[in-house]
Amino acid sequence: MSNIRHALNTKRSDDFAAWYQEVISAADMAEESGVRGCMVIKPWGFGIWERIQRLMDNRIKAAGVDNCYFPIFIPLSNFEREAEHVEGFAKEMAVVTHHRLIADGYGGLKPDPEAKLEEPLVVRPTSETIIGDAMARWVQSWRDLPLLTNQWANVVRWEMRTRMFLRTSEFLWQEGHTAHENAQDAREETLRAIEMYRACAEDELALPVFVGEKPENERFPGAVETWSIEAMMQDGKALQAGTSHYLGTTFSEAAGIRFQDREGTQQLAHTASWGVSTRLVGGVIMTHGDDDGLRVPPAIAPWQVVILPMLRDKPEDEALLDYCETLRAGIAAQSALGEPVRVLLDKKPGKAAAKRWDWVRKGAPVIIEVGGRDMENSVVSMLRRDALWGENGKPAFGNPPVGEVPGNISALLEEIQSGMFETARERRDANIRRDVSSFNELAAFYASGEKYPGWAEVLWSRPTGEALDAVVEKLKAHKLTFRNVPRDAAVADGTCIFTGEPAVERIYVAKAY
Amino acid sequence: MSNIRHALNTKRSDDFAAWYQEVISAADMAEESGVRGCMVIKPWGFGIWERIQRLMDNRIKAAGVDNCYFPIFIPLSNFEREAEHVEGFAKEMAVVTHHRLIADGYGGLKPDPEAKLEEPLVVRPTSETIIGDAMARWVQSWRDLPLLTNQWANVVRWEMRTRMFLRTSEFLWQEGHTAHENAQDAREETLRAIEMYRACAEDELALPVFVGEKPENERFPGAVETWSIEAMMQDGKALQAGTSHYLGTTFSEAAGIRFQDREGTQQLAHTASWGVSTRLVGGVIMTHGDDDGLRVPPAIAPWQVVILPMLRDKPEDEALLDYCETLRAGIAAQSALGEPVRVLLDKKPGKAAAKRWDWVRKGAPVIIEVGGRDMENSVVSMLRRDALWGENGKPAFGNPPVGEVPGNISALLEEIQSGMFETARERRDANIRRDVSSFNELAAFYASGEKYPGWAEVLWSRPTGEALDAVVEKLKAHKLTFRNVPRDAAVADGTCIFTGEPAVERIYVAKAY
Repeated sequence: MSNIRHALNTKRSDDFAAWYQEVISAADMAEESGVRGCMVIKPWGFGIWERIQRLMDNRIKAAGVDNCYFPIFIPLSNFEREAEHVEGFAKEMAVVTHHRLIADGYGGLKPDPEAKLEEPLVVRPTSETIIGDAMARWVQSWRDLPLLTNQWANVVRWEMRTRMFLRTSEFLWQEGHTAHENAQDAREETLRAIEMYRACAEDELALPVFVGEKPENERFPGAVETWSIEAMMQDGKALQAGTSHYLGTTFSEAAGIRFQDREGTQQLAHTASWGVSTRLVGGVIMTHGDDDGLRVPPAIAPWQVVILPMLRDKPEDEALLDYCETLRAGIAAQSALGEPVRVLLDKKPGKAAAKRWDWVRKGAPVIIEVGGRDMENSVVSMLRRDALWGENGKPAFGNPPVGEVPGNISALLEEIQSGMFETARERRDANIRRDVSSFNELAAFYASGEKYPGWAEVLWSRPTGEALDAVVEKLKAHKLTFRNVPRDAAVADGTCIFTGEPAVERIYVAKAY
Repeated sequence: MSNIRHALNTKRSDDFAAWYQEVISAADMAEESGVRGCMVIKPWGFGIWERIQRLMDNRIKAAGVDNCYFPIFIPLSNFEREAEHVEGFAKEMAVVTHHRLIADGYGGLKPDPEAKLEEPLVVRPTSETIIGDAMARWVQSWRDLPLLTNQWANVVRWEMRTRMFLRTSEFLWQEGHTAHENAQDAREETLRAIEMYRACAEDELALPVFVGEKPENERFPGAVETWSIEAMMQDGKALQAGTSHYLGTTFSEAAGIRFQDREGTQQLAHTASWGVSTRLVGGVIMTHGDDDGLRVPPAIAPWQVVILPMLRDKPEDEALLDYCETLRAGIAAQSALGEPVRVLLDKKPGKAAAKRWDWVRKGAPVIIEVGGRDMENSVVSMLRRDALWGENGKPAFGNPPVGEVPGNISALLEEIQSGMFETARERRDANIRRDVSSFNELAAFYASGEKYPGWAEVLWSRPTGEALDAVVEKLKAHKLTFRNVPRDAAVADGTCIFTGEPAVERIYVAKAY
């Protein structure tokens, strides 16, 4: 092993939170901006998000949902119409009150008192209340339904404690908003969207997730049902990675989304909304990263293959670059995972070994080094990021003949993709306890001192209202939360570990982000 | 001709501004949102913008520029550092002063006085001042340069008079921001970007443009040079369709973007910035629209070909749909303009003729109607949106054999694309006067009562400072503006029509959006 320091300073097993921050910095994904709660997303981090966007957008379009764009500003009065929704968001919104700056008389600037808005505007924390206005204009008859819209946008929620990608005051997301003739159609759309998220998370981000319904206390403000996909991070905590809400007529009543139904009667539309955000990037880091940095699943890697010529500032470099360029072109002509392979010939100055470790930290799935000796032997030195270390403690370079690399790259990338998913799924499933039969056992499990205890899948009786609140408080005392009730979670017998009543279904309990 | 009303109510020749609004509405592209100065971009309008984004983004990536994302909020103090820049923007910015709402005691909400920000935040009108902060962190050595970044984002400028797509308080754009070792590199990037815009505008949007430098009075606040692409709309007015700025060291000085140069000396970086926005969609409408609605160039049409089966709610519909689906699949398997052909089989309910006119108003390049008789004869009824009317005053349907349609679609779309560009270029060139030899002649030309007088290309001596201001004022009295000095506009002899001094170059004069 070379004496270059390659591993991160922090190991996952020592301090997961510090490790997370270090990966983001070491992979050059993002950084604090200096503006409260807002981050700068750097090229590698943004490139991963762009890939997620593209793949999710393909699925959204395939479902017949139309992309639109709605205003970033929402008048205060829109929030006043929907009390429960406001209750959930009012505490954390950015409010625009002025539309001009003037000199403050001390060499600086201040909001111009003459330019105070009559009605303050809120920077959207989510767009139900403004898209509802548009839907009310667009929907007149059942023939206008379903109305299926989506937007890719930035939203702002004033967060007190922020963590890059996971919780920032400004974040990027897509928000789907749909209106339907009846509850059944809206619920079907809610479930279609969450299933779309599951497929994208599992097939493309290689994140194993459970699809399920959130308990009442975890619903989106104003929703009748909230569904989520929940992923387990390597510290055993849960990450809510996407949500889909059946909103009933809550928002259509507030905005007046009414239509004439097939019988000629005026009805309120039933609406749904669903979103995923840059938080997914955080999920990718905490699921796939290791003690050498990030590992990006090939389907969302901005570069799937990186070729590093071992340049020596000598005339021989030219032949080496030709050799590498031929290889690059050969790989670029291939397809993997349904798209042309994304391959970079990295000619930037710098020592090849140092550059190798940069790409290891960034998590490019395949790194190919080519030196003079490789060229002489018509081979390359190839490293799989998902199998970095050999048994001898050195990087596990393979040396395939250069002519075979392009033809094999597709299968290799697909193997890495599915391997990363399987690894994550096995780890997750090994860290779910299903044998907890009482609340005391649950509490003891999480108090056992195990650092990353994972989840528990327990039986419950689906309490509501105050009974649920009491259970939630008990969990909270142990820093635990309900995650979701997985699909097909109905049980025939057993006892709720919280209420002692007959259990009706299973639910996941975990510490969570 | 059927008795369906198809043409718009307003003709371009009668009231261009009213026609513009009607096209946007008739093509279902966008609408007022109810939020001051902000519009809702609807699926067809947004689909066109998505196409422009995709094509421009391909060019941006091909130039080695990395997409990033920077905060939407800019602290007030960032603006205080750069006086000239603030002067240009301070009068029209949205200012966030609070981060929470509370009950106002009258059943409504108000900004919480306890949650007043210590330092107000400005919603970005453009991001030089915040990206400069990041660049100052990222740039240490000449090895870090050039630094080439771009972001796709929403920005807000508080506009008093708005017009959809052309001038809205919130709009969508991309802003490229680059830092360089020296003035020459930064100027080269400035010119590379404007040439990229020209190529995208002409080759993809079919908008003929002039690339040139804006005169001093039209520069971006803080810029040393501003370049633009300028397009002529059908009312003869100019639209600035994209700009690129060489910023010298103005912003690097304000933000402290310093680096150690190749000789080991500390230097200020030279920066550039460049942007295009949703305004381009307005340019497409006003260049290609006609009295029947929008016409979208195939390269940016969300659907290039629309197939309309003439369904009759009868059992025969099934065979007709099969026939159309075979045609759709055959067309979808083709490529045109470098991409798979985008073809829609529109099965929505509604009469085929009504749907035809919807697609005419939306401007789909090729509309194919298929009825029972077409199927019997193994043909289709095909309409080119760029040649809608026959000499007999009826829609000019062609009836090609169905089997020939897929094989010919690529050439047809490419012919429509280049034809639309040529038509626009000929019209533009026919509407530029180059024989104006005095200011009085210029004034007389624009006072002649001609409704859409077009542009004048005149000789000038490139006055600066107060001399320029005086000329600009004279033009303003006639509602005229300088557009740009086209590349290679140097002249050997002649007299400036404004100053009487020897002319040094040519400049375009026009009324403008």
